[in-house]
Amino acid sequence: MKRIDSIQNNSVKAWKKLHTKKGREKAKQYIVEGFHLVEEAIKNDAPILHLLLSEEIDLPSNFSPGSFELTYISKEVSKELSETETTQGIYAIIEFSYMRVDFAKVSKLLLIDEVQDPGNVGTMIRTADAAGYDAVILGTGTSDLYNSKTIRSTQGSLFHMPILRGDLIEVVSELKEQGISVYGTSLQNAKPFNEVKASNRFAIIVGNEGKGVNSNLLSLSDENLYIPIYGRAESLNVGIAAGILMYSL
Amino acid sequence: MKRIDSIQNNSVKAWKKLHTKKGREKAKQYIVEGFHLVEEAIKNDAPILHLLLSEEIDLPSNFSPGSFELTYISKEVSKELSETETTQGIYAIIEFSYMRVDFAKVSKLLLIDEVQDPGNVGTMIRTADAAGYDAVILGTGTSDLYNSKTIRSTQGSLFHMPILRGDLIEVVSELKEQGISVYGTSLQNAKPFNEVKASNRFAIIVGNEGKGVNSNLLSLSDENLYIPIYGRAESLNVGIAAGILMYSL
Repeated sequence: MKRIDSIQNNSVKAWKKLHTKKGREKAKQYIVEGFHLVEEAIKNDAPILHLLLSEEIDLPSNFSPGSFELTYISKEVSKELSETETTQGIYAIIEFSYMRVDFAKVSKLLLIDEVQDPGNVGTMIRTADAAGYDAVILGTGTSDLYNSKTIRSTQGSLFHMPILRGDLIEVVSELKEQGISVYGTSLQNAKPFNEVKASNRFAIIVGNEGKGVNSNLLSLSDENLYIPIYGRAESLNVGIAAGILMYSL
Repeated sequence: MKRIDSIQNNSVKAWKKLHTKKGREKAKQYIVEGFHLVEEAIKNDAPILHLLLSEEIDLPSNFSPGSFELTYISKEVSKELSETETTQGIYAIIEFSYMRVDFAKVSKLLLIDEVQDPGNVGTMIRTADAAGYDAVILGTGTSDLYNSKTIRSTQGSLFHMPILRGDLIEVVSELKEQGISVYGTSLQNAKPFNEVKASNRFAIIVGNEGKGVNSNLLSLSDENLYIPIYGRAESLNVGIAAGILMYSL
């Protein structure tokens, strides 16, 4: 049985660095915490390197570590690795994986342009998964996929579907070459979403919480859409807007 | 010019207590922070008791305190009152206000049953405002409206629309007496939302993040709805689900 007691242990020091984006990029690894997420990682064959369990935690009877060997850690080490207020004491260290998507074969995509809030990004990935989208593409400047809050908000959907990163200007050009319609979202010079008959294959672009989708992207899109405001709110939360569009178009 | 320098000042001590639900309930006051929210409070005639500005902050030229006198506070006091990481240094202390809604005159309502996350509650209030709903009713056990995270997530919509609190069992009975249809949300024994033709006057009930809407409420509703999951996510975030339903029905 593998066991780590000290927060001075070199592996613990290395894993703790996965709490920062810089640390993750360097190690090409990330950490997930909690039973639900770890189970989703196992079920979906994520490239798990280590499965860690705090010594004071009893594994629930319905939890199966699959073919992975558990490393037991002390309560102190668990506290060091946790990014939540009340930890469940279970962690997986996972290697980055890079997915490819053949744009010739997809029909529905969500493109995220510089959305800052990790909760918004994670929730949009979860909604895209629920809505049966083929992939999500995170544009440059969008909050990091492997941030602990992003991962938590995906509720495991990051293990179900392809999530790519790229320059959205290039992505949009490629999509258009493949005959995929691109719909931007904007409050100006846009059509109400419920007056648009969507194509069979399309991508939606949602943008930054404050400034919206970049105007460069809006000028490349086939059509720009908005969600009408019937009351006195100035705007919708970007995650809500994305959810309404993904379920309506 | 009114000015407060010390965190030992009795008013400061009293205002700080507004960071907890208990303190707010006792004083029947709450605190809002940041230019956007304070402006919305002023514009919408919220019962503001004090308007506080940190000494090192320059008022933006487009900001008008209306008829309110500013109280200047030291940076130290501002830090004591702030609940954000980077404060904008402006605060309003506001009295609780109780709104009444004549159910005979409303046509669209959102009922929130035991939703725990303040961000979810605030975002749903913002979406209900955007969708032109008449009121939001927070059931017993729902996260506090005056929690700073809830207030921030409303983006000011709490000043635009009636937000009531009550026992949802009683509320649903009253609504039905008024001829308002009540739609619960549930993953079991429910119809897909897009197959339902909504009445002219209706209320939607959304429920707790983990256990959903209470079964007592589901058995009282006229119809229970669900949002189909086309992919592999187990469920939608409650705020997203509420947004899709409010914009679709």
